[in-house]
Amino acid sequence: MEAYLDNGATTRCYPEVADLIRKTLLEDYGNPSSLHRKGVEAEQYIRRTTEILADILKVNEREIYYTSGGTESNNWALAGTAMAHRRTGGHFIISAVEHPAVSAPASALHDMGFDLTVLPVDREGRVHPEELRQAVRKDTLLVSVMMVNNEIGTIEPIEEIARIVHETNPDTVFHVDAIQAFGKCRILPGRMGIDMLSASGHKIHGPKGVGFLYVNDRVRLRPLIYGGGQQSGMRSGTDNVPGIAGLGLAARMMYDHLEENRTHMYALRKRLADGLSGLDQVVIHGPSDPAEAAPHILNASFLKVRSEVLLHALEDRGIYVSAGSACSSHKRSGSPTLTAVRCPREEMESAVRFSFSDMTRPEEIDYTLEALRELLPALRRFTRR
Amino acid sequence: MEAYLDNGATTRCYPEVADLIRKTLLEDYGNPSSLHRKGVEAEQYIRRTTEILADILKVNEREIYYTSGGTESNNWALAGTAMAHRRTGGHFIISAVEHPAVSAPASALHDMGFDLTVLPVDREGRVHPEELRQAVRKDTLLVSVMMVNNEIGTIEPIEEIARIVHETNPDTVFHVDAIQAFGKCRILPGRMGIDMLSASGHKIHGPKGVGFLYVNDRVRLRPLIYGGGQQSGMRSGTDNVPGIAGLGLAARMMYDHLEENRTHMYALRKRLADGLSGLDQVVIHGPSDPAEAAPHILNASFLKVRSEVLLHALEDRGIYVSAGSACSSHKRSGSPTLTAVRCPREEMESAVRFSFSDMTRPEEIDYTLEALRELLPALRRFTRR
Repeated sequence: MEAYLDNGATTRCYPEVADLIRKTLLEDYGNPSSLHRKGVEAEQYIRRTTEILADILKVNEREIYYTSGGTESNNWALAGTAMAHRRTGGHFIISAVEHPAVSAPASALHDMGFDLTVLPVDREGRVHPEELRQAVRKDTLLVSVMMVNNEIGTIEPIEEIARIVHETNPDTVFHVDAIQAFGKCRILPGRMGIDMLSASGHKIHGPKGVGFLYVNDRVRLRPLIYGGGQQSGMRSGTDNVPGIAGLGLAARMMYDHLEENRTHMYALRKRLADGLSGLDQVVIHGPSDPAEAAPHILNASFLKVRSEVLLHALEDRGIYVSAGSACSSHKRSGSPTLTAVRCPREEMESAVRFSFSDMTRPEEIDYTLEALRELLPALRRFTRR
Repeated sequence: MEAYLDNGATTRCYPEVADLIRKTLLEDYGNPSSLHRKGVEAEQYIRRTTEILADILKVNEREIYYTSGGTESNNWALAGTAMAHRRTGGHFIISAVEHPAVSAPASALHDMGFDLTVLPVDREGRVHPEELRQAVRKDTLLVSVMMVNNEIGTIEPIEEIARIVHETNPDTVFHVDAIQAFGKCRILPGRMGIDMLSASGHKIHGPKGVGFLYVNDRVRLRPLIYGGGQQSGMRSGTDNVPGIAGLGLAARMMYDHLEENRTHMYALRKRLADGLSGLDQVVIHGPSDPAEAAPHILNASFLKVRSEVLLHALEDRGIYVSAGSACSSHKRSGSPTLTAVRCPREEMESAVRFSFSDMTRPEEIDYTLEALRELLPALRRFTRR
């Protein structure tokens, strides 16, 4: 048996999406910038995806820009805002639990002379809205807070944050990294007060190498990548037709089944949490109220077993999980989120992230719990030696 | 019958490449940053492509970085160099025939305070090496000259340019946009004196949305995109496994048949040029010596017929060509290269680019010539009315 519980890192592509991608590689392979029919045919795929995304988010089609993925979207949102104000400089605010795709470009901007405030979070990973209010300044260009935390699944109070940002400084742009939220949560930038929003294809059974940035018409943003003038000159480069087509179909499929997928994944999450609560020396991270966590992420520490040891022991049984978030796993520098929530060192070193998708079956959870019950005592004996 | 003669804009994917991409979407879909087997399996695809590219270019594997395509590679080369010297500022040199993916980021850097020199070219689109020597200054950070011109196919004297750059200022970096050259020319950065080199997947029967930047170990470059630390921290974001795998296989297939492909395409080019020389009022652009042109591009003006009119008339017969380069076609701002070679307005407005690949058959050329012979007199009558 196999249990792929690393859907927070990446997901298996939907077969329908893979079929569509294949069609754009072999049949409708034109360059959308070409004036002839093959160009126009290729452009239709992009138009279709834009219609889908605009419909899902209830935004204007011209507010959607395609990128190479969530990381580029986040970098663009921050650096593009900075470049639009480079003559005056200014101030950025991010939370302490942002993914490195936000915190690293923010640090780079700080190195370049922009001010940066990193907001602390509570023990469940949430930004304090009142601390945010204190932090917003007259020269605050942008506030960036993620919607769903990639490590522990906490849902940030995005609407409240947006309200405070806009009340405190109407010129400040509110950017949301929705890479873990898109496809799993209802997101309405207009109603929620989100000015820019980043999302990615490969977290929703779409392809890697594609994402988008929603940019409200009123936002002042400069391009990160210049060239042939594609996407109204805001993001040049030959449009990635296979990726964009795949992203659109995957998004459509996710949102057509949003409620049933959420119900399914919350049930998986509860099934795993219930099972874990029957095990000794297990600490579950993130919101105590499951309704305040995303449906697809559960992070737990198995005390006295190092994350990587457990990860590889589970792998031997065909169970795939993450030690911290996959993106930072190469660096071994400790988890930003668990650090920010003041997780004790012992828990941090033994934390494992389980992440589900609509494809995950309850049997995979049971199989994983069974494996944990067998493995943990043996691994702990091993550790003690 | 169909004649796809717009391979300079984009190419049809090799079926083998599409199959490999499908496999990475549905089977080996892991995130290379994940520590478990599915991550390691996915990473193997990247490693394999890196081996292929390092072998083709005869460079170190650690000098290859993946990007979302040629445009990002070019932007990164320029902006990453600028950012590495932002405290001191400095000077950039590009040629007048660079693709907008080089000239547009160069202009953006100029707006930010960097100096910029745009080198003129001769009537065949070549940079004058001695004018370059005059232009290189003590503070010249980077010189960027393309290897093969995307509009008229001129091969630039890259080795001579490299020699002059390095003789005149050993600290100046020489970047080459090889987006039209890669896969069609032998490129050896070490021997040729190239410090950075950009290439793209979709010009060589690989997928759109992926490319690479070769960066010589000695080059000082800052990232354009920051985040989870992938690719030694130089280009973050989840690795685009399907794209990178497809790029590698396409490159291998192109270079395994390089000489026969070149011979095949030069024969197509000659066949078309010979046919065109039998038509009235046709001017062929680019090098008079075909050996100084790339094998896959032929640009010609059909006087008294506007490019777009001919493009659509050919399209009606299933013949796909480009009016100018596809990347700038949306902008209708006139061709940078034809402008730089001082092409008369009448010729500029009637220029059409034919571009081939190894998949192009001689019958497609004959069919195109036949169509031109029939269409041109009628279209010219129409224009005169």
